[in-house]
Amino acid sequence: MISPAATLAEVGEFALIDAITQGLLLGEDVLLGPGDDAAVLAVDGPVVTSVDVLVEGVHFRRDWSQAHDVGRKAVAVNVADLEAMGARAQGIVVGFSATPELPASWALDFAAGLRDECVAAGVSLLGGDVTKARDITVSVTVLGGLAGRAPVRRFGARPGEVVAYVGRLGWAAAGLAVLSRGFRSPRAVVEAQRVPQVPYGQGVVAAAAGATAMIDVSDGLLGDLGHLATASDVVIDLDTGALEVPEALRVVSVATGVDPQTWILTGGEDHALAATYPSVSQVPADWRVIGTVRAADGGADRVLVDGSVWTAPVGYDHFRSRR
Amino acid sequence: MISPAATLAEVGEFALIDAITQGLLLGEDVLLGPGDDAAVLAVDGPVVTSVDVLVEGVHFRRDWSQAHDVGRKAVAVNVADLEAMGARAQGIVVGFSATPELPASWALDFAAGLRDECVAAGVSLLGGDVTKARDITVSVTVLGGLAGRAPVRRFGARPGEVVAYVGRLGWAAAGLAVLSRGFRSPRAVVEAQRVPQVPYGQGVVAAAAGATAMIDVSDGLLGDLGHLATASDVVIDLDTGALEVPEALRVVSVATGVDPQTWILTGGEDHALAATYPSVSQVPADWRVIGTVRAADGGADRVLVDGSVWTAPVGYDHFRSRR
Repeated sequence: MISPAATLAEVGEFALIDAITQGLLLGEDVLLGPGDDAAVLAVDGPVVTSVDVLVEGVHFRRDWSQAHDVGRKAVAVNVADLEAMGARAQGIVVGFSATPELPASWALDFAAGLRDECVAAGVSLLGGDVTKARDITVSVTVLGGLAGRAPVRRFGARPGEVVAYVGRLGWAAAGLAVLSRGFRSPRAVVEAQRVPQVPYGQGVVAAAAGATAMIDVSDGLLGDLGHLATASDVVIDLDTGALEVPEALRVVSVATGVDPQTWILTGGEDHALAATYPSVSQVPADWRVIGTVRAADGGADRVLVDGSVWTAPVGYDHFRSRR
Repeated sequence: MISPAATLAEVGEFALIDAITQGLLLGEDVLLGPGDDAAVLAVDGPVVTSVDVLVEGVHFRRDWSQAHDVGRKAVAVNVADLEAMGARAQGIVVGFSATPELPASWALDFAAGLRDECVAAGVSLLGGDVTKARDITVSVTVLGGLAGRAPVRRFGARPGEVVAYVGRLGWAAAGLAVLSRGFRSPRAVVEAQRVPQVPYGQGVVAAAAGATAMIDVSDGLLGDLGHLATASDVVIDLDTGALEVPEALRVVSVATGVDPQTWILTGGEDHALAATYPSVSQVPADWRVIGTVRAADGGADRVLVDGSVWTAPVGYDHFRSRR
């Protein structure tokens, strides 16, 4: 039993790993879990994999987010990448770096968050590496399978198709606006900033329904649809009349004076899924149609908003942007 | 083309990723490489996976190692983990964090090192994530397959078996002793500290030859054999007469006054493979027999040296050790 008041230096690397892996729930597809040089996972067909890194001060702040939230977020953002391929996530491995002065309680709460979100997403924690560094850095790699389906890529959208999304848009950005001004409510958007509500399972639903291209909306709808449109060599035209403005965003808009459409179109970190479908009739039940695909016109602008070019910044560059 | 004098902030995240992934060699088993939300890799049977994190100031120093060396090391230490399961490594994904003020040339040299060691190890760079942080942090996850073999675990050694290793022992520790004293030679041990010479392919050789338990020697021979002996519930007795002392280590020993056996028994970071085999006749050609497996005697000491307990420190704890 680790004393919550102890630091990582007092607890030590191996006792921490023992505490994290104790009582871990592993799926039946895990042939060998944590504790050896590597883990072994049964996957149906080829393995689909992606990595995402969360850094303290960049992707989360310890004064804004609890350790448990950071653990949940680390799993959610990675599983979203596999959803965006039409794959089912099955397992994750985690690289965790932190200062030796970090309270062990933080690391244990973080691990509990990891485990809880793994259960929610239906994935197993397969293993990890723990080391020291100045910043808390969390690197999660997710593994999963396609069960015989082809991966849904960013490439594949064709003129005449429709664009749809599932999940949330703008919630995390509205939460950031609230937190940046020193407030902690409305709670719904603040919680959305701390942990995205990823539409688990909808990637497989989209693939089965015939989605021709798909992307995880991590950097903002306009920016990520821009990646999809560039890869597919098409132009996407969004209809803002079709974009729902949730009540929670309206409230924050009134309080901050920011147009909620800015959050919906350019806010990242909600990890909605955006996809193209050959026709409206193929769009699955929980998805909302928000635009159409046009032929490329030789111009630089890949995403139009109500037929016009959007002139404000649309994405996030890690080495250039300031938080 | 990125100017070598530019910083990451000047280059930007996306141009850096483009530069890293341009001209990448991908194996035929890579069904989808970098550039989408996730990569797809064909694996024969279940997937074997492991993660290792390298942090500036902990696992490498920019004044001791070139960026190219750090890239090579990041691949090598991870592939070693799959070798230790008897698996063949096929692909890696990389999480890379660095300060925006880092010269872009460092990141590009690092990426070239990654690519070069991927070629040496026969693995493909499948994807990655790039973000900012104060320390350079490199997280590599490796994926591979077993081609129908069972994984060779740490559990499985039985009394009466022999212990053998392949690769290098003590070289990186001797290199660290040299560098810590401000010297840059002998070059062989200094280079061993910068990039381990992992015995690629020997994990599969060991599995095919009937190894009953195996481990990657990353923290030191005594420490890592201790993990293996504990997992197998046996005692291992090492015969120091069988341990070769390479000429390079003798030279450093004379210059520093350190017994080379200390490096061989407790030095980490060379990533030799240590395994147990039912009999000497089953030990593959390049391996050296260095001890025997005994029944557990109820004592706490799992590894003996010439029949006696080794009393000096044997391993490395990331939150407790000082470099």
